[in-house]
Amino acid sequence: MNYADRLHAAIEKTGNACLLGIDPHLDQLPLEFSDARDTSLPRGERAEVMGDFCVALLDLAENLVPVVKPQSAFFEVFGADGHYQWERVVAHAKSLGMLVIGDVKRGDIASTAAAYARGLLEGTGGVDEVSHLCDAVTVNAFLGEESITPFLDVCKKTGGGIYVLVRTSNPGSADFQLCGEPTLSERIADAVARWGKELMGSKGYSSVGAVVGATHPEALAEMRARMPHSPLLLPGYGAQGAGAEDIAAGFHRGGQGALVNSSRGISFAYKKAGRPCSEWREASTEALNVMIEEISAVAHSAV
Amino acid sequence: MNYADRLHAAIEKTGNACLLGIDPHLDQLPLEFSDARDTSLPRGERAEVMGDFCVALLDLAENLVPVVKPQSAFFEVFGADGHYQWERVVAHAKSLGMLVIGDVKRGDIASTAAAYARGLLEGTGGVDEVSHLCDAVTVNAFLGEESITPFLDVCKKTGGGIYVLVRTSNPGSADFQLCGEPTLSERIADAVARWGKELMGSKGYSSVGAVVGATHPEALAEMRARMPHSPLLLPGYGAQGAGAEDIAAGFHRGGQGALVNSSRGISFAYKKAGRPCSEWREASTEALNVMIEEISAVAHSAV
Repeated sequence: MNYADRLHAAIEKTGNACLLGIDPHLDQLPLEFSDARDTSLPRGERAEVMGDFCVALLDLAENLVPVVKPQSAFFEVFGADGHYQWERVVAHAKSLGMLVIGDVKRGDIASTAAAYARGLLEGTGGVDEVSHLCDAVTVNAFLGEESITPFLDVCKKTGGGIYVLVRTSNPGSADFQLCGEPTLSERIADAVARWGKELMGSKGYSSVGAVVGATHPEALAEMRARMPHSPLLLPGYGAQGAGAEDIAAGFHRGGQGALVNSSRGISFAYKKAGRPCSEWREASTEALNVMIEEISAVAHSAV
Repeated sequence: MNYADRLHAAIEKTGNACLLGIDPHLDQLPLEFSDARDTSLPRGERAEVMGDFCVALLDLAENLVPVVKPQSAFFEVFGADGHYQWERVVAHAKSLGMLVIGDVKRGDIASTAAAYARGLLEGTGGVDEVSHLCDAVTVNAFLGEESITPFLDVCKKTGGGIYVLVRTSNPGSADFQLCGEPTLSERIADAVARWGKELMGSKGYSSVGAVVGATHPEALAEMRARMPHSPLLLPGYGAQGAGAEDIAAGFHRGGQGALVNSSRGISFAYKKAGRPCSEWREASTEALNVMIEEISAVAHSAV
């Protein structure tokens, strides 16, 4: 089944469109995982402890969220040892029935982009490669259409998906993304709509999605209209300041059409809640349930 | 010593500004490395054979080129096992006295960008992390200044450098990079010049460089003028069609100011030369010597 349809089914099944970001900031891991910060330990041991945290976080979210999004940077901080933990975390999420969006933001040309697409979504045909492949990945289109078509080709073969960065959630996204008239973001959005036609699923959605920050609610409705068939990935909810009402315009009737991401707001909820870090599990579970309730109310009110 | 000064010294020492790209395309490896393509072998073994090729290529270039540029995509095709080979290849290049630019094109915000910068240029303080850190990396500024400042902060601490994508060498670079007036590329170039002031070395160059395709000779002189203190990384020579004369405008007097990259044109020279793949070493060495002669003639004629 292609990514668009698997995503649709996962949102139907869990009844919500929440995306749990797995961002294991080394400095913010609860005390029981502090070995990850102990520079006297071998790198592989430290990385494994970081992976333990991610696995524990995924277990908390089992059957609650349809999709998770590990962020590659926090794994790559431990180099190859971190990469092994990335694969462990992706495989664990899949074993729990979750879809996985690899937040890698890769962007390169031609055969180089094809190598990224293979590594993340397809594998090279080896028997020991399948368990840790992602369902979809985030990509950066700065290098042009040539940087995207290799991903489309792989997605056609594997049933994978991509989310193209269109308008990111950070304040500084305006530095370059609003350049020109139409803006760079609008041009990329139009290209996303065009690329998406090659990868349509059976429910009206494409496997070519777009990242649009929930922190720009004024732009969201317009982006939704420019890319009517693209699943949106909306970062910025929670820790970055966007509220449930800010993401309403991203949804279609029935609560489909978008995923709302929260990373730190869930994984490090104990900090905001002022609870001891020994209660991080309880704090994260509560924050996740609050998010699910908020997002579901908004998503299902979409008309 | 900061990156700008180490780069200047490396170009002085070797007498040329050639950058050898390490792009181990799985499908193009010479026959003696065909185990890398054998899907019946464990992934780790396949990745190691690919790494063997890279190490052999580096050995050919010892004392010939000042800098090498491994491309992360071709390593990541083997996931974590490929990542170990990446670290092996970076460490081997450094052991041969070469500077290493990690061609990773990472781009993300705030603490995420900081994690990439740590992983690639700084490490997390563990004793087993130093050997495979890069001297500089390529970065993508699409997410704005926030995506660059964490790299600048790390470079200040470690003496590392970055090359910001300004105008890439592929034909499709025009899709988005020429958007607006001034164009996106020109806006990024002006930002590079500004960021670079924070990381000036002692020879008139900054540790904040820029990627400008040698395939756009008409734009190169203008980009050189917009970023007078930035070392340029010029891809596109050789396999992508740019010739020695196309890169002249990137250099300053004395053959400083730019690095000219060739990847496939060197590593897979046996193909273009029509030689049997058993003679790949001879073909690559010849191609490298031709390149060094061509680039040096142009670079040293700069006024």
